[in-house]
Amino acid sequence: MCNFGDCLKCSNPDCFDERLDKMHEECGVFGVYSLDGNEVDVAGLTYYGLYALQHRGQESAGIAVSDRETIVFHKDMGLVPEIFDKVMLNHLKGTMSVGHVRYSTTGASRRENAQPIVVRSRNGQLALAHNGNIVNASMLREQMEENGTIFQTTNDTEVLINLITKHSITSETLEEAVEKMMVDVKGSYGLILMTASKMLGVRDPYGIRPLCIGKTAGAYVLASESCALDAVNAEFIRDVEPGEIVIIENDEIRSVRPFNKKDTKLCIFEFVYFARPDSVIDCASVQQSRYEAGKRLAIEHPVEADVVIGVPDSGISAAIGFSNQTGIPYGEGLVKNRYVGRTFIQPSQGMREVAVRIKHNAIKKSVEGKRVVIIDDSIVRGTTTRRIVQVLKKAGAKEVHMRVSSPPIKFPCYFGIDISSRKELVADKLSVEEIREMICADTLGYLSLEGLLKTPIGSKRGFCSACLDGNYPIEVPEEGDKFSCGC
Amino acid sequence: MCNFGDCLKCSNPDCFDERLDKMHEECGVFGVYSLDGNEVDVAGLTYYGLYALQHRGQESAGIAVSDRETIVFHKDMGLVPEIFDKVMLNHLKGTMSVGHVRYSTTGASRRENAQPIVVRSRNGQLALAHNGNIVNASMLREQMEENGTIFQTTNDTEVLINLITKHSITSETLEEAVEKMMVDVKGSYGLILMTASKMLGVRDPYGIRPLCIGKTAGAYVLASESCALDAVNAEFIRDVEPGEIVIIENDEIRSVRPFNKKDTKLCIFEFVYFARPDSVIDCASVQQSRYEAGKRLAIEHPVEADVVIGVPDSGISAAIGFSNQTGIPYGEGLVKNRYVGRTFIQPSQGMREVAVRIKHNAIKKSVEGKRVVIIDDSIVRGTTTRRIVQVLKKAGAKEVHMRVSSPPIKFPCYFGIDISSRKELVADKLSVEEIREMICADTLGYLSLEGLLKTPIGSKRGFCSACLDGNYPIEVPEEGDKFSCGC
Amino acid sequence: MCNFGDCLKCSNPDCFDERLDKMHEECGVFGVYSLDGNEVDVAGLTYYGLYALQHRGQESAGIAVSDRETIVFHKDMGLVPEIFDKVMLNHLKGTMSVGHVRYSTTGASRRENAQPIVVRSRNGQLALAHNGNIVNASMLREQMEENGTIFQTTNDTEVLINLITKHSITSETLEEAVEKMMVDVKGSYGLILMTASKMLGVRDPYGIRPLCIGKTAGAYVLASESCALDAVNAEFIRDVEPGEIVIIENDEIRSVRPFNKKDTKLCIFEFVYFARPDSVIDCASVQQSRYEAGKRLAIEHPVEADVVIGVPDSGISAAIGFSNQTGIPYGEGLVKNRYVGRTFIQPSQGMREVAVRIKHNAIKKSVEGKRVVIIDDSIVRGTTTRRIVQVLKKAGAKEVHMRVSSPPIKFPCYFGIDISSRKELVADKLSVEEIREMICADTLGYLSLEGLLKTPIGSKRGFCSACLDGNYPIEVPEEGDKFSCGC
Amino acid sequence: MCNFGDCLKCSNPDCFDERLDKMHEECGVFGVYSLDGNEVDVAGLTYYGLYALQHRGQESAGIAVSDRETIVFHKDMGLVPEIFDKVMLNHLKGTMSVGHVRYSTTGASRRENAQPIVVRSRNGQLALAHNGNIVNASMLREQMEENGTIFQTTNDTEVLINLITKHSITSETLEEAVEKMMVDVKGSYGLILMTASKMLGVRDPYGIRPLCIGKTAGAYVLASESCALDAVNAEFIRDVEPGEIVIIENDEIRSVRPFNKKDTKLCIFEFVYFARPDSVIDCASVQQSRYEAGKRLAIEHPVEADVVIGVPDSGISAAIGFSNQTGIPYGEGLVKNRYVGRTFIQPSQGMREVAVRIKHNAIKKSVEGKRVVIIDDSIVRGTTTRRIVQVLKKAGAKEVHMRVSSPPIKFPCYFGIDISSRKELVADKLSVEEIREMICADTLGYLSLEGLLKTPIGSKRGFCSACLDGNYPIEVPEEGDKFSCGC
Repeated sequence: MCNFGDCLKCSNPDCFDERLDKMHEECGVFGVYSLDGNEVDVAGLTYYGLYALQHRGQESAGIAVSDRETIVFHKDMGLVPEIFDKVMLNHLKGTMSVGHVRYSTTGASRRENAQPIVVRSRNGQLALAHNGNIVNASMLREQMEENGTIFQTTNDTEVLINLITKHSITSETLEEAVEKMMVDVKGSYGLILMTASKMLGVRDPYGIRPLCIGKTAGAYVLASESCALDAVNAEFIRDVEPGEIVIIENDEIRSVRPFNKKDTKLCIFEFVYFARPDSVIDCASVQQSRYEAGKRLAIEHPVEADVVIGVPDSGISAAIGFSNQTGIPYGEGLVKNRYVGRTFIQPSQGMREVAVRIKHNAIKKSVEGKRVVIIDDSIVRGTTTRRIVQVLKKAGAKEVHMRVSSPPIKFPCYFGIDISSRKELVADKLSVEEIREMICADTLGYLSLEGLLKTPIGSKRGFCSACLDGNYPIEVPEEGDKFSCGC
Repeated sequence: MCNFGDCLKCSNPDCFDERLDKMHEECGVFGVYSLDGNEVDVAGLTYYGLYALQHRGQESAGIAVSDRETIVFHKDMGLVPEIFDKVMLNHLKGTMSVGHVRYSTTGASRRENAQPIVVRSRNGQLALAHNGNIVNASMLREQMEENGTIFQTTNDTEVLINLITKHSITSETLEEAVEKMMVDVKGSYGLILMTASKMLGVRDPYGIRPLCIGKTAGAYVLASESCALDAVNAEFIRDVEPGEIVIIENDEIRSVRPFNKKDTKLCIFEFVYFARPDSVIDCASVQQSRYEAGKRLAIEHPVEADVVIGVPDSGISAAIGFSNQTGIPYGEGLVKNRYVGRTFIQPSQGMREVAVRIKHNAIKKSVEGKRVVIIDDSIVRGTTTRRIVQVLKKAGAKEVHMRVSSPPIKFPCYFGIDISSRKELVADKLSVEEIREMICADTLGYLSLEGLLKTPIGSKRGFCSACLDGNYPIEVPEEGDKFSCGC
Repeated sequence: MCNFGDCLKCSNPDCFDERLDKMHEECGVFGVYSLDGNEVDVAGLTYYGLYALQHRGQESAGIAVSDRETIVFHKDMGLVPEIFDKVMLNHLKGTMSVGHVRYSTTGASRRENAQPIVVRSRNGQLALAHNGNIVNASMLREQMEENGTIFQTTNDTEVLINLITKHSITSETLEEAVEKMMVDVKGSYGLILMTASKMLGVRDPYGIRPLCIGKTAGAYVLASESCALDAVNAEFIRDVEPGEIVIIENDEIRSVRPFNKKDTKLCIFEFVYFARPDSVIDCASVQQSRYEAGKRLAIEHPVEADVVIGVPDSGISAAIGFSNQTGIPYGEGLVKNRYVGRTFIQPSQGMREVAVRIKHNAIKKSVEGKRVVIIDDSIVRGTTTRRIVQVLKKAGAKEVHMRVSSPPIKFPCYFGIDISSRKELVADKLSVEEIREMICADTLGYLSLEGLLKTPIGSKRGFCSACLDGNYPIEVPEEGDKFSCGC
Repeated sequence: MCNFGDCLKCSNPDCFDERLDKMHEECGVFGVYSLDGNEVDVAGLTYYGLYALQHRGQESAGIAVSDRETIVFHKDMGLVPEIFDKVMLNHLKGTMSVGHVRYSTTGASRRENAQPIVVRSRNGQLALAHNGNIVNASMLREQMEENGTIFQTTNDTEVLINLITKHSITSETLEEAVEKMMVDVKGSYGLILMTASKMLGVRDPYGIRPLCIGKTAGAYVLASESCALDAVNAEFIRDVEPGEIVIIENDEIRSVRPFNKKDTKLCIFEFVYFARPDSVIDCASVQQSRYEAGKRLAIEHPVEADVVIGVPDSGISAAIGFSNQTGIPYGEGLVKNRYVGRTFIQPSQGMREVAVRIKHNAIKKSVEGKRVVIIDDSIVRGTTTRRIVQVLKKAGAKEVHMRVSSPPIKFPCYFGIDISSRKELVADKLSVEEIREMICADTLGYLSLEGLLKTPIGSKRGFCSACLDGNYPIEVPEEGDKFSCGC
């Protein structure tokens, strides 16, 4: 039986370092093409669209705008509202716009990696925004370097734009060049590509990353998630299909589907964690999927208890599902401090014992003397989970039953999620029982993979669950190989 | 019957201006007194304590530290983590510390108004942090000006510190001078006062503003709310009593209670809106009070419906209570964008039709075709409420039943809440039926005052509900009089 | 004979720290009173006036403006153009304005010390800008503290404004209260005081700090130096007299001279170093005074040489004078890097040998093989001087003859110059011969005090030369006493 | 005869816009290669070197450092000390370093244009810093674009680095690839190129832009001007020859000179205006050249006068020369405000009459009642010159005789000086007499081209004087053609 006091004093230096304790969010892309004769503030719409996608990346953001002749852009480190003010948005006048929010890896030259990337080429100016990761980027980069290409960033996106430009020499149209690029690259991508006069939306052949199409008054819209369509009052038209190239030109929208249909492999973690609950991806509601996961979790791992609570915000939907399935009342037992952000100072070693309930605090009256079921969407390194269990026990919970609405994460992701090796994954090192002990919970249950894959009810796609089962849809580097995060 | 389309196109210029649509949060105070021989990082503790109180004020913050000889301080505009970094905290070495977060009114000299205010006086250095509002500050200020006092801010706190200093000429101790100050001033206050070697906590005679005492390893702690005690692992000892002066000196804590017991009048809105749900004030749990308000609301204003949802975050607790009372399932139907902050650009007139669902978006699958009960804690101007109803209807809600877990706000507050006159209060101008029409809801029900006042279960205090019934515990200025916000 | 190589490798840790090697510049004040019916951009004029006075203080600046009803202000750390932009100047609308630039001492609460200080008092709003230092500030402060006054800064200016406010209780007019304040305080001051409707200019009874009056189209102007009048195209009217109170009210200017005439004691270092060469103070031209000092220096300390050069910018005028007196050609031999400012990184110990000619570099062709006379205005600590001599020798100068156009500084200043004790003064510790050796010069000559005091040709005042001869016009603290810098 | 009053009230909107009134300064480059076994702080040296070159560009700066394996860099907008602090310099650890200061043209993507440009290529990492302008950059860019190259900036430097990379496919060594690049490009350049392990310095075949080699303890140094060698205590070795490639590798320095000797064409304006007076370029002293120009000007355009003054700082050397040649005493008559920088607010239309003497003020005692000769190095648009003449007349100068130490500028420069067309050049539109009238001078004399070209005494090069005589050493675009500024 776990001894709470011991845990609290544990000397694990990473214990408070939650930066690594969530799989990092990915990038988001957003595009607007206004139809001729409509006065649409495309930069303004993109600002609000990126705002709705901010959860997909908080480190840098950018907007590029075309007036059908010239592309101008602004990008920088920071949150969307930190980078853009009214003056800047007024400078970005045009009829088409591409935006990007980015979760950026560390490094000295981070600012150079902000997107959209905007270049001059034989196709004139090109702007490219990319969500995803290219698995064979290093190899492609080396090949092109041999042939005299230079690279100014460590960004996969620069590889893509160079490939498109090379192929355009032997192509009639930009979309033909994009098609050839899609043959070369292995990986995940939701892309928006803009020339001075035309816009393309592209989704990788497996559909690993999402991309959807909407329409608002006088304009077409492309976005990583449907919540960004809602933000700008655009009607959802449909998801871009895996392997599809959407072309918006001369006020018309058309498609090229150069590849044979493959088993599609949408990233299951879009439903588990990444996407906003109000988004609908490939016809399945994100919130409904999480709620359903909670119900299935209750069936797979029932427990006698007095209250079900969720870890805010990611475990709330599943907790309500768990409660409804079991009849155990749903309650609020944890409060999350909304002001913990990038500049928060982590407690130093000496402060850890005193500063334990800064990010999450328990509501004592809700848990005191009770048997508590606590639901979260996933466990990566386990340190946050352990702290939450401790906070509940300190507040007087009689029992704490941890339930996780997805299976143990055992394999690294090569398609956009920032888990660079197995070393950080607690489920790769420990058994479920060992994890239970490590996090000081009375019982621990994970939703099964079979259960999880049924949760996006009504989805029209298959899923990539490689991080859970190791079945990568594309050949990936040997473990231990270095690879750069693409997005 | 409300016509959704008309509302959406309404030309009310304030429609999107939500800054005035919530009663603004107040200030928070926090103090640490470390006992002799203990190495306590008092500035670090204060940083985490203010972090936990950040919801009470986001415009400025400050920390003053004493090493028992000299007080040094740092304060500025912004959030706690924007103002303090490791280097700055390391400069603030000492054994006692006072911190403050402030909701500041607009004005050219705002930075001067940041607290704690630190002065040199016949008592040596004094630091003062104040949560509350002094009703007769202007009169007191004028009297002192006549006698040659100068004022460098428009802050009530400067009035208090001048009064204390004046009275110290005829007083044996600092606490005696504070007592005399308490006779002079009319208003609400939770104060922390620090000299180079001693700390005082003071609560106004009616106990309008909260203040509590805790103890952590080697230190006494004072805080506006108990959630800040939790953040630094301090044990809650007790609330400071109305009219009590707590003195911490020579490693001992003692009290002076100079006034006859009065009917205490804790601000009821601490439970309705201000305080964090995990706080316990005057023995009542904030979250439990809100949950209870939801239950009573269900009894007072029942409705047939398919789902109960709460406006995040303030309406969630009451929505769960409403659901549990009625048996109507609790669900998630609204998502709040967590990244909307001070620098967010409000949509311009031309953008309003397109940018409606930026701050709150509906989860379509949760509300489509359903009869929805939506719960919020209060309605001030009504514009946010109307937009939320519209968002739900646009997402397909068949009916929207608005329930408010507090009564209509009809009177201005003179004790710290930033409603400067009746003009902004929709409930002062319109009947409940007119408000229902204005916000486009199918039905509207407010919790009664009687119901609300019973919700802080186990509270040991009476309440000030002047903003709801006009019964001010202290004589206040005539309506229309100018008065400055104190905190 | 000095061995250049030894000096270069000296291990004196302060060797490169030039911050202490010049007597720091003081504050500057500027005021505008626009006559009724004239549309004068008073904040704009003050911006340009402070720009011209920027050499008197680079650490903070501020402008307060009155529209004859209310005073608004803005002040911050930094240079004038860093603090004020067009938007801010447009906010400062009014018909009277007071500005200040400040050389500020170090300390945690520096921002609080920025001026003008603006308060509310029985006289309504008051703004005060002060150049100078009050010798008995501590004593006055303590007296007022005993009587219940609080102080929010360590600034002498707060003492002055409290005194004025106290005395206004027993005075008919503001000027009468100022008169009484002048009886209380001992020290140097050039003040500008502004109520909502009236402006006062005040100079201390000894006239230690300068202040002058000008008139431009539609407005009266007050300024520390005449160069600021030139900057706003104002005609110089006259210097304010020692002990005079100038009152500008109801579009009229009048004076009160409450004191008997004293021997005036204008700070001689205004001519030696502080003031801009294009200023005229008490009827003497600053540039002409420096030129004259160079001529007298040539007579007192002749030398055979090939070229005379000045240390830019402070030694140039005297060098031309020396050249004209002796017939030795004037030349350019040193270049000063114009970009060395507050944020320049001083070379670390390891870099000193390689980074010697960053701030001053020699023009080799001008000095190689020549006997060089190098002129500077003063020597404080000697380290900069030594480095300049080394640079010249390294460039091939055969001989380097140092000439200083003022006498050795042996005593601290209590009236505004930032030399806090004798310890830093090389001339207090070493004889002229020892200094010569320390700075590696072949010969060294200082202008005599008699010579210096004759140089401000046509001046209508006597001088304070206490830092040179120890004859303080006012009783000063014992050496070693702490005292705060006033300005 | 010029009527001063009229001029002062002239309504020319550009009258105060001095940004265009000086030919803009160019870029500066600096490189350090430390020899094996020496602990040299290469980033620190580069910081001080760029400091000494700051006059050549104030808009952006950057430093790239190699530890013989990897290149890291930092660059940003602003002055050197604004961009680099101690923490940043400590991050830039290595044994080789390249730095750049840039005068940048306006545009939305300015930050992207900061240098050094650092890329990954078949040669590994490459860093390139460039001073100069490539005349045929557009054509080369288009050719490469046709072959599939993308460009991320509008910077000529990106053209150069792409060319070098292309040619490296068919080259044995990097220097061979550079040679081939030199055949392709037409224009001016002083380049420093760095791989992870080797450094190249390159000067264009006509030697239009300067570059020199120095040696300090344990390191070779390359710099645009010798004053930067002095700053880091490096001995001047020699100038890089026109068309020479200097290679520093394996601790050895060697050269390739692939081209036949051409008539060299060093930009004469390096002596007239760009370079620092303490620099020596191609064996001629800059200060001595300016002094000599003043002497020749006195011979060509003698005048009877009482005093000779220079416009600070650019006209001082020539003024001393003029004085020595004629015997008319040299004096100080103008003061320049040292604090006028990038953020200075230009006076608005309404302020112009009042704010005339902000940047330059006259010293009245030096010019009143006198016949004044005023010397400047050049006149571009004439507006600054006119204002200076006005300031002198307003101060009482009886006569003002303008003398210019270079000939009228009549032709645009395509090699790095920012005069984009003839339209801005007063000397292209007006005769000397008309200019004299426009600037309100009593007489006006320009130094002849013959005279000027003799002034860099001892120079080993011929000169490009195309902006004075239209004789471009390289074929240039037709007037009116757009071209981008390279540096």
